[in-house]
Amino acid sequence: MVIKSKPFETKTLDVESMVKWLASFGQSDGGGVNRLLYSSPWVEAQHALRKEMDDNGLDTYFDSVGNLFGRLTGTEKKSKTILTGSHIDSVTNGGVYDGVYGIIASLIAVERLYKKYGAPKKTIEVVSLCEEEGSRFPITFWGSGNITGIYSLTNALTVKDSDGISLLEAMKRAGFDPDTYQSPKRNDIDSFIEVHVEQGVVLDKNKESLGLVSHIVGQKRFTIQVVGESNHAGTTPMPYRKDAMSVTAQLISYITEKAKELDPDLVATVGKLTAKPNVPNVIAGEVLFTLDIRHHQEEVLNHYCKIIQSFFNDTAAKNGMTITMEQWMDAKPVTMDPELAELSKHVATEKGIAFKRLISGAGHDAQIFGTFCPTALLFVPSKNGISHSPKEYTNKQDLENGVEMLTEFLYKLAY
Amino acid sequence: MVIKSKPFETKTLDVESMVKWLASFGQSDGGGVNRLLYSSPWVEAQHALRKEMDDNGLDTYFDSVGNLFGRLTGTEKKSKTILTGSHIDSVTNGGVYDGVYGIIASLIAVERLYKKYGAPKKTIEVVSLCEEEGSRFPITFWGSGNITGIYSLTNALTVKDSDGISLLEAMKRAGFDPDTYQSPKRNDIDSFIEVHVEQGVVLDKNKESLGLVSHIVGQKRFTIQVVGESNHAGTTPMPYRKDAMSVTAQLISYITEKAKELDPDLVATVGKLTAKPNVPNVIAGEVLFTLDIRHHQEEVLNHYCKIIQSFFNDTAAKNGMTITMEQWMDAKPVTMDPELAELSKHVATEKGIAFKRLISGAGHDAQIFGTFCPTALLFVPSKNGISHSPKEYTNKQDLENGVEMLTEFLYKLAY
Repeated sequence: MVIKSKPFETKTLDVESMVKWLASFGQSDGGGVNRLLYSSPWVEAQHALRKEMDDNGLDTYFDSVGNLFGRLTGTEKKSKTILTGSHIDSVTNGGVYDGVYGIIASLIAVERLYKKYGAPKKTIEVVSLCEEEGSRFPITFWGSGNITGIYSLTNALTVKDSDGISLLEAMKRAGFDPDTYQSPKRNDIDSFIEVHVEQGVVLDKNKESLGLVSHIVGQKRFTIQVVGESNHAGTTPMPYRKDAMSVTAQLISYITEKAKELDPDLVATVGKLTAKPNVPNVIAGEVLFTLDIRHHQEEVLNHYCKIIQSFFNDTAAKNGMTITMEQWMDAKPVTMDPELAELSKHVATEKGIAFKRLISGAGHDAQIFGTFCPTALLFVPSKNGISHSPKEYTNKQDLENGVEMLTEFLYKLAY
Repeated sequence: MVIKSKPFETKTLDVESMVKWLASFGQSDGGGVNRLLYSSPWVEAQHALRKEMDDNGLDTYFDSVGNLFGRLTGTEKKSKTILTGSHIDSVTNGGVYDGVYGIIASLIAVERLYKKYGAPKKTIEVVSLCEEEGSRFPITFWGSGNITGIYSLTNALTVKDSDGISLLEAMKRAGFDPDTYQSPKRNDIDSFIEVHVEQGVVLDKNKESLGLVSHIVGQKRFTIQVVGESNHAGTTPMPYRKDAMSVTAQLISYITEKAKELDPDLVATVGKLTAKPNVPNVIAGEVLFTLDIRHHQEEVLNHYCKIIQSFFNDTAAKNGMTITMEQWMDAKPVTMDPELAELSKHVATEKGIAFKRLISGAGHDAQIFGTFCPTALLFVPSKNGISHSPKEYTNKQDLENGVEMLTEFLYKLAY
């Protein structure tokens, strides 16, 4: 028989220390972390976190894919569960705050609430989601996707990492045997509350402590192929050229200018470009480039795509060249719950924390929960907007503001 | 004792068959040739060509670097030598006409002259230059450069191919021992006459049979580095970006437009581009690209560079970014001999061959001889301008026109 302490008897938790403590699992050169899904550092971090939750008197359990829950049971029978937390996995050589901060903030908020008010009316569960980034396997949101039922084991059958290890094999090695899989889908979730670092520069630039997220953007990604004619750079006069590089430059300039012009929240990025033959003295016969566009309104995305496509067609015709646009990603925008958003605004105002309404340009577990249950997403600032890098940093006061905000927010929801 | 035939007793040479015959040395997949300097196919081709010259009664010899000469001695004592020919080496998987056609045309022209008129007054030497392309070693015009004295053995001391074989070692293996090197520099050259395929589309587009080259362009090449800030494609609003890709697109568009606007003979090419980190969902922090510009007037090149540099500076300042421009090639324009050019025009008119005055946008051995002795360069058409490819093609009639033109031209110079 396990003798459990009463919740949060043992010690007072400190947010910055705990972020640093979790960063010790999978520490990378240069002060970042490598904690890819189901890797040894990941397993160690989840188990250390479970022990911490256990030691603090929470009821802990893993579901079949390795999401970790720490439960503080509410006094109201049959109450649904308020889920709060974020993800434990990192990108390769990622920052120490991304994901982890949200788990720690939730644990500390629950500690403070319990110490001050005792057991809540509604059950609160702190969750350490097993995976969000998609850094090891070509699948994202494996943790939240299983809880919300958009994924089950069948979605993982053919998924492999770059070493050829299947997701199922990796699960098994991490102690989550697919043969004993039971759907992690939950039907008892009241709401999901996530705190996360912004991973952008808006709060830092505006010197605000808190971001209240209204939407998570939709994303469309394309590969554009421009086919011209490879030719001798010296012997082909300018009017005779079908120069894929020069035409691509026109397209990229148009992409950038139109995005700026159309809507202040629209972002369009050409991040990757490959030219053929890619030789200084040969006119490029072909260029492939990617286009990543994001906005929180599907109609803006569609309108922008239409304008771009039309310009591409005109440019192709004008230059006697072929320009094709292939879409390989289409994630819809997700709206955070308006009532929770209103409540978060109320709490921030009450607490006197300088806040800003924000749209999240990055993906988060909150976007998976957002179409499943009322969901709120709160940001703390990222210094210089740096993310997915060992240089990721949020100062202690901002970390503390986030915890304070979350504590009061959960109080209003659960007590 | 070697019994030599009288010149050109044995057979009648045919231009197209002889091009095909030489293409059999180093034949590549798809019908092209691999005949890199000092490689086995190169050695075999030079020796087969020497035998052909020997069989036709020419006095043949190699110089110390492997340039092959076939001499038809003139009747005038102490006459200087008219040198005519082109290069035997090819790029990797190159076309069968490039270089070779000029050697064959010279050999056939000399045959026809001898058969019709007997020995010339001035000595004519057909030359198969050992190297022009710079495809195996990072040095170009090794053959003509040695004859004209711009190169000697010391220029080759540190030059290696991609397998780490030094140029000197490759020479030795090909039968030209550097230890017995004697300067191939000639002081007896009257003039150099080269016939070559255009490697461009101008003659083909204009349906002309012959190009009379007035200048070979100067070339400047640069690497341009654009340094911005790598950032998250979703969380960085457009006004906060320092997007190296988007700024590069502006530069390339400007480069293209300005070149078109400034001078019809100016060409500017961005052939190679590398972005960092080159990932779809990350704003490019750095882009490197090359710029190749060519014109036959140095002042136009300089003026264009000045305009470009000024736009780069303005763009860098406007975007708070760094743009640097590093030059790594500066070849001066070369003017072909005006008297020879006038003579070639006269001959073409006389012969009724449709010709066009041209500027060569590609480099040729004629540009090395052009600053050393009176030089003429004649082009025959390249179908669709295709060059450095197995698809390179010149039709039989155009090959024949070039031989006819060269024959008459040499007659006027040597008889």
